Amino acid sequence: MAVASILIAGEWREATTTSTFSAENPATGSKLEAVFPVSAWEDCDVALNAAVEAAKELRRVPHEALAVFLELYAQKIEEQSAALVAMANAETGLAVTPRLKDVELPRTTTQLRQGAAAAREGSWTHVVIDSKANIRSHFAPIGPVVVFGPNNFPFAFNGVSGGDFTTAIAAGNPVIAKAHPLHPGTSQLLAECALAALAEAGLPLATVQMIYGISNEDGLRLVSDQRVGASSFTGSRNGGLKLKAAADRAGKPMYLEMSSLNPVIFLPGALKERGDQLVTELADSCLAGSGQFCTSPNLILAIEGEETERLEAAYADIVSKRAPGPLLSAGGLKGLDANVHALIKAGATVITGAEVAVGDGYRYKNTLLRATAEQFLSKPEELQLEAFGNSTMLVTAKDVAQLQEVLEALEGNLTGCIYSSTAGDDDDIYPALAEVLRLKVGRLLNDKMPTGVALSPAMNHGGPYPSTAHPGFTAVGIPASMIRFGMLQCYDNVRPNRLPRELQDKSPNSNMWRLIDGHWTRG
Amino acid sequence: MAVASILIAGEWREATTTSTFSAENPATGSKLEAVFPVSAWEDCDVALNAAVEAAKELRRVPHEALAVFLELYAQKIEEQSAALVAMANAETGLAVTPRLKDVELPRTTTQLRQGAAAAREGSWTHVVIDSKANIRSHFAPIGPVVVFGPNNFPFAFNGVSGGDFTTAIAAGNPVIAKAHPLHPGTSQLLAECALAALAEAGLPLATVQMIYGISNEDGLRLVSDQRVGASSFTGSRNGGLKLKAAADRAGKPMYLEMSSLNPVIFLPGALKERGDQLVTELADSCLAGSGQFCTSPNLILAIEGEETERLEAAYADIVSKRAPGPLLSAGGLKGLDANVHALIKAGATVITGAEVAVGDGYRYKNTLLRATAEQFLSKPEELQLEAFGNSTMLVTAKDVAQLQEVLEALEGNLTGCIYSSTAGDDDDIYPALAEVLRLKVGRLLNDKMPTGVALSPAMNHGGPYPSTAHPGFTAVGIPASMIRFGMLQCYDNVRPNRLPRELQDKSPNSNMWRLIDGHWTRG
Repeated sequence: MAVASILIAGEWREATTTSTFSAENPATGSKLEAVFPVSAWEDCDVALNAAVEAAKELRRVPHEALAVFLELYAQKIEEQSAALVAMANAETGLAVTPRLKDVELPRTTTQLRQGAAAAREGSWTHVVIDSKANIRSHFAPIGPVVVFGPNNFPFAFNGVSGGDFTTAIAAGNPVIAKAHPLHPGTSQLLAECALAALAEAGLPLATVQMIYGISNEDGLRLVSDQRVGASSFTGSRNGGLKLKAAADRAGKPMYLEMSSLNPVIFLPGALKERGDQLVTELADSCLAGSGQFCTSPNLILAIEGEETERLEAAYADIVSKRAPGPLLSAGGLKGLDANVHALIKAGATVITGAEVAVGDGYRYKNTLLRATAEQFLSKPEELQLEAFGNSTMLVTAKDVAQLQEVLEALEGNLTGCIYSSTAGDDDDIYPALAEVLRLKVGRLLNDKMPTGVALSPAMNHGGPYPSTAHPGFTAVGIPASMIRFGMLQCYDNVRPNRLPRELQDKSPNSNMWRLIDGHWTRG
Repeated sequence: MAVASILIAGEWREATTTSTFSAENPATGSKLEAVFPVSAWEDCDVALNAAVEAAKELRRVPHEALAVFLELYAQKIEEQSAALVAMANAETGLAVTPRLKDVELPRTTTQLRQGAAAAREGSWTHVVIDSKANIRSHFAPIGPVVVFGPNNFPFAFNGVSGGDFTTAIAAGNPVIAKAHPLHPGTSQLLAECALAALAEAGLPLATVQMIYGISNEDGLRLVSDQRVGASSFTGSRNGGLKLKAAADRAGKPMYLEMSSLNPVIFLPGALKERGDQLVTELADSCLAGSGQFCTSPNLILAIEGEETERLEAAYADIVSKRAPGPLLSAGGLKGLDANVHALIKAGATVITGAEVAVGDGYRYKNTLLRATAEQFLSKPEELQLEAFGNSTMLVTAKDVAQLQEVLEALEGNLTGCIYSSTAGDDDDIYPALAEVLRLKVGRLLNDKMPTGVALSPAMNHGGPYPSTAHPGFTAVGIPASMIRFGMLQCYDNVRPNRLPRELQDKSPNSNMWRLIDGHWTRG
């Protein structure tokens, strides 16, 4: 079978191929037919040069054109939804419904349309005008953006269609997407839609480029190349930190979204009040996408007692009865099993699961581990290992003080959640726990599982290191996440006709918010 | 003479001293009497623990208390201005007037008061409320901030009184200041004012701590310590990059403000129209503070021709007649001379100066070097070496295209300036040059020297690497510069009474801007 082409410099080209690979259907373990190339550095080099030219052109096009492209792209994705969903289902094993077709694909097109609206409105550029001093500043495109998509969301976080892609483009930058090797066919179909939309919108065709694979060394070289403006990566801590180190050395911004345990705390009053309901909520959240969500609860915290024992028993009962969903890959299964056993080695007890499941493809028994807070505190690093998949661990504390100690020992996480009694029975212990947890997480929840990451302008899908690389940026939520792909540009005493339109006295459109002499104004 | 105490954990304590040092009067070369300690790691460790406690307490105090402290501190600085100015003059050789007394000290107290106003108003926290989804986010204090102050501004950029200090505190964080060893006595006087203001304002006394010296290794350890929220450094590229590498490895934000050539371009029409006036402006800017400003023009660009020859001759004439001001230290003089000679070795011609000046203290002849664009393009790295002090280099291009090539070869800078004819004679060549320069600088100026860094909310005192470490942040301009010291915190479905006041439905004050359901509102 012919090796697939890469999308580079505005056209589908034969890659400079160093090796090839094919995806698998992880629900069956069978290899898919299509063959994809691993590119040599030469392909990156060509893509970078084309991206630099596209970046120049993009700085000259009206924001409206960016918006039109993003909307056309969303429309083309919808037109191709049947093919896209079928391909993604084959490559990831994720359910067609209620996941790929009716949740993730609409989320993706919603993001694209939100990006379009934000590009059109322009408020994300955070215009500040000091009219007396005639100093004006705003955020402008940072330059070509390299996006490494993760394995777990073939649409919504795909390097060529997801949130990082959308916000990089909406901010006016070309994207070089590194498709995830577990869903190359999906990425190819998406990139075809993107190219068609670019042509129709009249944007530079090299605004969107995509390669399927590169060596680890070339990945490091790519994010540290001087032609790059910034890069983003969603995936494992190991891979992310290597890319970060390379980008840091070159002085290039690198936005990461890495591991996170997403602790969920059940306070005694909540368990007493609605324990049965909560255990179902928890199981639904932990097993969503076979536990392969960035925000999947990997750590459940509770205080020892009868209600907590019931929680454990009920959770074990529920999840052991549910059929394990497929994991995304043989590697994912191996990694999950290895980390579950590393947790066991560090002292965790197996309540249920903790072994490979029989059946087609790559599946692991739905797993619950348990450890005491004392154990956790004696080996905080080992027992904070993320077991990415359908496994979670219950850690029980003797009392509130010990629970607080566990929170103090946590690394940075994307989310943290506290369930408490609606009648106020936990109100005396909530504040001290929330105060500690607040500093460890980007998003603090009450009475709600963290796996839903709403596409809200107030969302923070970010958090303290090592869940991300900087606690001031979010990867979800438009327009806030666009700022990652902007550079701050100030104009001091620049003549009026030489200013970008958004910085001129007269607003370029009636919807753009601008901070003029201390007042946010629009129109 | 007794060794000075360090300000740590709320009191003046004897340092764990590994060695001692004294400052010098660089205008005379004479050693000053006071003796200051270089601290062992133990002092950092104690300071870090105290800062962690102070950070906790600061999260609970009303923003009003932060504002009161900053205002009291400004007032105490004014009360002590005579002593402060005398000490800074002795330690830095900078003129009492028109610099320390009537420019830098008022700038410092203005910054403190602007920080107070911003803390009080709260708009810097960038509240975003999605009331339908009940998701709310804002920036909250990032944690203890370590500030390394530079040598060149003993008040306005001092680690214990300058812009980084002010914005870190105004954002609600304690500061551990590492005083610059060239002005320890000034830093001591400032810290005394700060401590008195803390006590009067009722803030935790460990909100401001200061040490005079630590080993390089302990500096790296300090910025990468897990107790730190973020660090900032203003100074040499060499020192900054080492600190950045250490902080990066630990996942800690590190804000840098390092070297910058601040290119100034004189277009032919401007020189023809007002060459004589411009040369005086240029000389005033290049020699301000003996050229030891972050934004001092180190690179002058023009197109070959009669007017450019006149510029060169007139500049050389003016600066050779002005008495060289004192440099900040023996090391500064040595570094300047070494870098001037490195530029000469790389091909630059000496027009005037380029040697140590006779006279008291550390002085260098006001210097002008010259190179062709061709030379510059053949050795772009060597000829972009910053000679920090009263030296600048004129690079002449054959034509506009070659000038543009020079701009393309520039590294990231804080500022870039283009002077052009007011009658429009340069309007045909401005756009292409500005387009290239724009991407190389944080602040683009027209017809104005870069050495004035206005305390404007629209200012950007930042720029692409290696002038700073991230092109999205500014070190000057309140409230924008405060965001560096905040972490993004989101509240998802959190019960109303548990929300921080600023995130509750009712605004905490009538002046705070909040983005509620897509509308910036106040009151």
